[in-house]
Amino acid sequence: MNPRMIPLALGLLLMTGASVAHGQGTGSGKATVDRTKEEAALRAADLAWAAAAGRKDLDATVAFMAADGETLPPNGPAAKDPAAIRKIWADTLAPGSSVDWKPVRVQVAASGELGFASGTYTTSSNDSSGKPVNDRGKYLEVWKKVDGNWKCLMDMFSSDLPLP
Amino acid sequence: MNPRMIPLALGLLLMTGASVAHGQGTGSGKATVDRTKEEAALRAADLAWAAAAGRKDLDATVAFMAADGETLPPNGPAAKDPAAIRKIWADTLAPGSSVDWKPVRVQVAASGELGFASGTYTTSSNDSSGKPVNDRGKYLEVWKKVDGNWKCLMDMFSSDLPLP
Repeated sequence: MNPRMIPLALGLLLMTGASVAHGQGTGSGKATVDRTKEEAALRAADLAWAAAAGRKDLDATVAFMAADGETLPPNGPAAKDPAAIRKIWADTLAPGSSVDWKPVRVQVAASGELGFASGTYTTSSNDSSGKPVNDRGKYLEVWKKVDGNWKCLMDMFSSDLPLP
Repeated sequence: MNPRMIPLALGLLLMTGASVAHGQGTGSGKATVDRTKEEAALRAADLAWAAAAGRKDLDATVAFMAADGETLPPNGPAAKDPAAIRKIWADTLAPGSSVDWKPVRVQVAASGELGFASGTYTTSSNDSSGKPVNDRGKYLEVWKKVDGNWKCLMDMFSSDLPLP
């Protein structure tokens, strides 16, 4: 190599290093975010969440929520802290009740750290007289990446069935 | 400048150019997306939407929805096409009814093309006997950029009040 080219080579090396650092630093470069892969990961996280709820594992279920997450239930106030969110899940996973859901529409931003999932759910429970009650509806979840894992930031759901 | 430094300077120039091109090409670089500005624009769009609904301008109201948007009302099926979404809005904006809402939490992805807004709403209407009925609740909207404008992709809302 011509010794006079060394500074240019160094510049090019710096450029490469800077681009890589830029991509890693923002997590937003096309080169570093594979949206198809991230959308598959978000969908898998949503299904793993439903599986945890299906086996009534309360700790594992609430662990899918981000620390600053919110649960927005129908006919009740928003739950904006972990204790309030845990209370909603404890009721949902109470003995005699069951819940399942499946994502239909999943999309992740080009930057790979924010996305959403929407789909359908079914629940069954017993009313105060012990009579079985089935419900079905839809949901909308906003997810964000926290330390490399998808966590649910906003969780909202409502029945498809008319008011009783 | 030391002439031996020119190649290095050239390399640094290339590096800067490459970083800018990288940011522009993906629309996702920190250099090209001002998240604070985008979040303000999303919030403003949500408030403009509420203003259009407030003056019962049905065309302007439904125009805030993306062409592939969905409205997810409580106690009813998801509206997944423009005609079904327009029907929900026509009912919401019917004579004697009114609606207002305000975003509380707004966040846009680093790439600037996907975000969400969540906040509170109030409605008033008359029941079948003509008696005024007031409702209040919360909502969750996912927004995406379409041709430079924020459009609502997923719109969900539910009452804070217990079932009647």
